[in-house]
Amino acid sequence: MNEIKIFCPASVANVSCGFDVLGFCLDLIGDEMVVRKTTKKGIRITKIEGQDLPLETHENVAGVAGTALLKAHPSSFGFEIEILKGIKAGSGIGSSAASSAGAVFGINELLGRPFSRTELIKFAIKGEELASGTPHADNVAAVLLGGFTLVRCSKSLDIIGLPSPSQLYVTILHPKIELKTLHARAVLKKNIVLEKAIEQWGNLAALVSGLYTNDYNLIGRSLIDVVVEPHRSALIPGFQELKKAATNSGALGSGISGSGPSMFALSKGKETAIQVGKSMKQAFLKSNIEFELHISKINPKGIHIISSK
Amino acid sequence: MNEIKIFCPASVANVSCGFDVLGFCLDLIGDEMVVRKTTKKGIRITKIEGQDLPLETHENVAGVAGTALLKAHPSSFGFEIEILKGIKAGSGIGSSAASSAGAVFGINELLGRPFSRTELIKFAIKGEELASGTPHADNVAAVLLGGFTLVRCSKSLDIIGLPSPSQLYVTILHPKIELKTLHARAVLKKNIVLEKAIEQWGNLAALVSGLYTNDYNLIGRSLIDVVVEPHRSALIPGFQELKKAATNSGALGSGISGSGPSMFALSKGKETAIQVGKSMKQAFLKSNIEFELHISKINPKGIHIISSK
Repeated sequence: MNEIKIFCPASVANVSCGFDVLGFCLDLIGDEMVVRKTTKKGIRITKIEGQDLPLETHENVAGVAGTALLKAHPSSFGFEIEILKGIKAGSGIGSSAASSAGAVFGINELLGRPFSRTELIKFAIKGEELASGTPHADNVAAVLLGGFTLVRCSKSLDIIGLPSPSQLYVTILHPKIELKTLHARAVLKKNIVLEKAIEQWGNLAALVSGLYTNDYNLIGRSLIDVVVEPHRSALIPGFQELKKAATNSGALGSGISGSGPSMFALSKGKETAIQVGKSMKQAFLKSNIEFELHISKINPKGIHIISSK
Repeated sequence: MNEIKIFCPASVANVSCGFDVLGFCLDLIGDEMVVRKTTKKGIRITKIEGQDLPLETHENVAGVAGTALLKAHPSSFGFEIEILKGIKAGSGIGSSAASSAGAVFGINELLGRPFSRTELIKFAIKGEELASGTPHADNVAAVLLGGFTLVRCSKSLDIIGLPSPSQLYVTILHPKIELKTLHARAVLKKNIVLEKAIEQWGNLAALVSGLYTNDYNLIGRSLIDVVVEPHRSALIPGFQELKKAATNSGALGSGISGSGPSMFALSKGKETAIQVGKSMKQAFLKSNIEFELHISKINPKGIHIISSK
């Protein structure tokens, strides 16, 4: 195999009560990436379409993540990468994760798969570190493994795949405003009230239980974030109206996707997810801010190969 | 049915990373209770053996919990309660929970079962409130429902039953020192560091996953408490030595049972749990403090009826 074309899906991290540990993978929404063997060693980003992003290997998340992999597994040949961005950078649905995970996945395939998908996470987070300052794994884990993923420990990168109830759909509204992860991090307090933390971990534990038992009602009751959302919601225009619109249309729950500005809502069934989308759109039109709307199933498989030669 | 004799098991709450939300039920270790219909209305505690506890209905956790039930479901007859305590009060393995849950379970049976086991929790916590100042549900939920139980929300008493892997055994060492729940609460800080909270909820979510997938290794990796144990461990003599002894003998993990002073260790298999007990005993002998040792399976059913007439 000399060339591989892959689909690198978008993802939602910081899933409500699962701040910094929980993520899930989207279907259909994502980037395409071509990775090609070259005789010249190293990594070159030869084309980026759809977004204005740096082509320099050390300034591009795909380049940095791929370079980390090659450092651990040197190769006698090199790689060219072409990226067709379907995900907007800074949207909060894992744009940098799709590129970071895509690069290491594609290179790994062309190298004859020396690493498992789980092992690739440690390289992909180097791209995340470049993008946001912290090597967080919640998005790249979801992109590489699919479904819901849990980062038990970010230091040891102990990642656990969780089940995805088959009727779970997500609605995403992306307000086209700029909101840097660094800025979204800055509004968080270093300390939180113990009582709130207890509420949060009670909800997260219950959410995990709901995923295992396909208990949509429990999933809905657990999608509460009493720690981060109260601070970050102020950064997102129309947050309360969007949340109310989602709930009133039958969503199980909703929250901030990643560090925003996108909002996600989870629903049981596609019809409800579409209806939730209509209501969120209606609620957001008043803001006069441009936006995009996505409806997606949870993608249980993560990155997939489109073609190879 | 005019009289019922029941077994009210001990329980472990604050299971490591599951502080204030997670509990599990023990087998064989517990109290016996006889509840008997009487023509005279109300509740009378007629006998307590094994512990020096108040017989006055309003000063006894069984009396208070039972009274709360009768307030919600008035009865034309009354109840006599005899308690044979097998659990030491103040040991940290749910002595008050066994009596509180036992009383409401027994009375409910004699009333023809107007309430489900889950519904009985809201009455049993009144006994807990008398005992410790807070109406916490983590012990009584485990006693009434059996297995592992999760308090998603203590305000709405949203309780979720979690699975108990069949090879899971617990070793408990109870140092015979007095440690009041109120005192153990006092050493906790009102605020905690967000990073620690994230670690804690990552571990709890992983622990729940491990319970669903029978992944003993994951259960072991997740049994870490970075929030409460660092403060409360100082109140328990020989804490570090006990923990080390448990780990070195193959325990999956260990921690403080309830608010202490008992320590629990979870193991895969009875043989390991026994070995862990021997090592903990050995480590604790140096302290010259009296202690008791218990080995138990997780009890998946909770309170059970011994006999009735």
